[in-house]
Amino acid sequence: MGALQTILDEIAREKTVRAVILAAKGPVFCAGHDLKEMTARRADVDKGRRYFEDVFARCAKLMQSLVHLPRPVIAAVDGVATAAGCQLVASCDLAIASPSARFATPGVNIGLFCSTPMVALSRNVSRKHAMEMLLTGDFLSAEDAARIGLVNHVTQDGETALEGALELARRIAAKPPATVRIGKEAFYRQAEMKLEEAYSYASRVIVENMLARDAQEGIGAFIGKREPRWSDD
Amino acid sequence: MGALQTILDEIAREKTVRAVILAAKGPVFCAGHDLKEMTARRADVDKGRRYFEDVFARCAKLMQSLVHLPRPVIAAVDGVATAAGCQLVASCDLAIASPSARFATPGVNIGLFCSTPMVALSRNVSRKHAMEMLLTGDFLSAEDAARIGLVNHVTQDGETALEGALELARRIAAKPPATVRIGKEAFYRQAEMKLEEAYSYASRVIVENMLARDAQEGIGAFIGKREPRWSDD
Amino acid sequence: MGALQTILDEIAREKTVRAVILAAKGPVFCAGHDLKEMTARRADVDKGRRYFEDVFARCAKLMQSLVHLPRPVIAAVDGVATAAGCQLVASCDLAIASPSARFATPGVNIGLFCSTPMVALSRNVSRKHAMEMLLTGDFLSAEDAARIGLVNHVTQDGETALEGALELARRIAAKPPATVRIGKEAFYRQAEMKLEEAYSYASRVIVENMLARDAQEGIGAFIGKREPRWSDD
Repeated sequence: MGALQTILDEIAREKTVRAVILAAKGPVFCAGHDLKEMTARRADVDKGRRYFEDVFARCAKLMQSLVHLPRPVIAAVDGVATAAGCQLVASCDLAIASPSARFATPGVNIGLFCSTPMVALSRNVSRKHAMEMLLTGDFLSAEDAARIGLVNHVTQDGETALEGALELARRIAAKPPATVRIGKEAFYRQAEMKLEEAYSYASRVIVENMLARDAQEGIGAFIGKREPRWSDD
Repeated sequence: MGALQTILDEIAREKTVRAVILAAKGPVFCAGHDLKEMTARRADVDKGRRYFEDVFARCAKLMQSLVHLPRPVIAAVDGVATAAGCQLVASCDLAIASPSARFATPGVNIGLFCSTPMVALSRNVSRKHAMEMLLTGDFLSAEDAARIGLVNHVTQDGETALEGALELARRIAAKPPATVRIGKEAFYRQAEMKLEEAYSYASRVIVENMLARDAQEGIGAFIGKREPRWSDD
Repeated sequence: MGALQTILDEIAREKTVRAVILAAKGPVFCAGHDLKEMTARRADVDKGRRYFEDVFARCAKLMQSLVHLPRPVIAAVDGVATAAGCQLVASCDLAIASPSARFATPGVNIGLFCSTPMVALSRNVSRKHAMEMLLTGDFLSAEDAARIGLVNHVTQDGETALEGALELARRIAAKPPATVRIGKEAFYRQAEMKLEEAYSYASRVIVENMLARDAQEGIGAFIGKREPRWSDD
């Protein structure tokens, strides 16, 4: 979590990054927290509580850093994504899975309900689907994850999720970065507003966007049927 | 936008309208704002800002007029619906597409993120689906639009979307208009409330509805196995 | 409603219940309110209003009792679920349907819009799908109900919904009951919060869960590769 937070903080400051892919080496995308480490910290009750509070505070911050990152983040899931690993997928803006990917929130099986993963999960999929994952802990296939909206697409013809995510990332990287940054931030902000407030906010955002250089360039290029040249950010 | 606002305002006052279909002539359902007109207004910075503020305020009002209209509105999409055109579809209560319909929020490609369309879009489809449309600007087929919930149905056997929408509108037009009006208003109001508040509000609505003439007539006709005669509104 | 409320109140106090199935005898799961009884009460206007207020207040309380029940509730739908009967399905945590199940919110056909059912329905399925059910009153097949997220699964090979629900309930009943209780409560509470507040709340929940006995036992059993022994609740 520390390493991932550090690199996300760097990316947030780095103007040249265009899109981010969250991927893993090996057959596990992410299996969530380290249960052995957690158990070892339990011995001392007071220290245990402070340790757990710290772990889950850092985890919640990490997940929200994905949401607040000014660049789009694509999860590339080629293997198993469970508990906080499934939460990572749900917290990304987009997700590509290969047919071998599997998803679960299995905490209920070990007496630790996936209460923090469900914050992200329940903002991706409908209630009955989220509840089934949380109450059974069952694995979901890549196909089922796509069906319920947890991932965008399942790759075909032997393409890995990373290859699929790279193709998607390259296409998004060709868009004007400032526009993507403005849009991503506005998306999550307006999602928490009531309709009238959301329109009032989004109207302010699009007017500023319209007055900025990239909209002038992009619309000019579109009308003039030429390639646009985007500013750096 | 002005013409559409005017007719919606008329419909809102008109007691005899039973359902509204939003359709288009030709291969484009609606392609959103006029980029050439917008670009022409950009020359004068101060006037440009006021112009854009006015355009997007009128657009947001128009979209919310569809939501607040006391009659159900069905989008009939036989062609391309992009940007604010896709927002129109998302803002309607129901939507029918023919197989040739296509949907996109492509503003990102011209440096102008579809921030106002996404207010409506993200209240129709799940987050990962909305984000993919917004970040890639890619076209969605009618089938995919139905799969993610942006439209209700895709017509078959050569039926146009307008024909499908007319069939649906006729069936809704046979319902008691006051009941439809009460229900539509309550739907969008309760959608923005927490569960307990929503039940408290909806319970008040249904009690008033129960005491009104059409419920008395409709329930009486149902029990008496006869055709009901609805009041005008 | 009175009988169901009484048994739910008992279950809420009863520590040994592990999961609840809501099922019906005969071809109707639940057809909602008794229209003949309601009509009979209409004669006296003042008494009628008080009666309707009381009926819908008790109904709203009943539906929220399903949500607040500390045990998971599974709807097993083998027949017709209409109006408040469809609301029951939507209010359960999970739902299993057999292929013969059908779902509708047909109040609009009798002049009484399903305004209270839509509170639960619109928190299960997307807006266009909810609006179509509410405005047309049309029946939805079990397959379509699964497609839009109103039920989790449709049984196959002649299995009844009750059999399917029992199989699911048995698997959930083997999970630690306190963990399930904590998780279910947290699910519905966080669902009504904004992201940052939801993470703050869910982090507190999971820390308490982590410090409780069942997490210690469950994680210990997982690491030690032995069967866990759950506490009673």
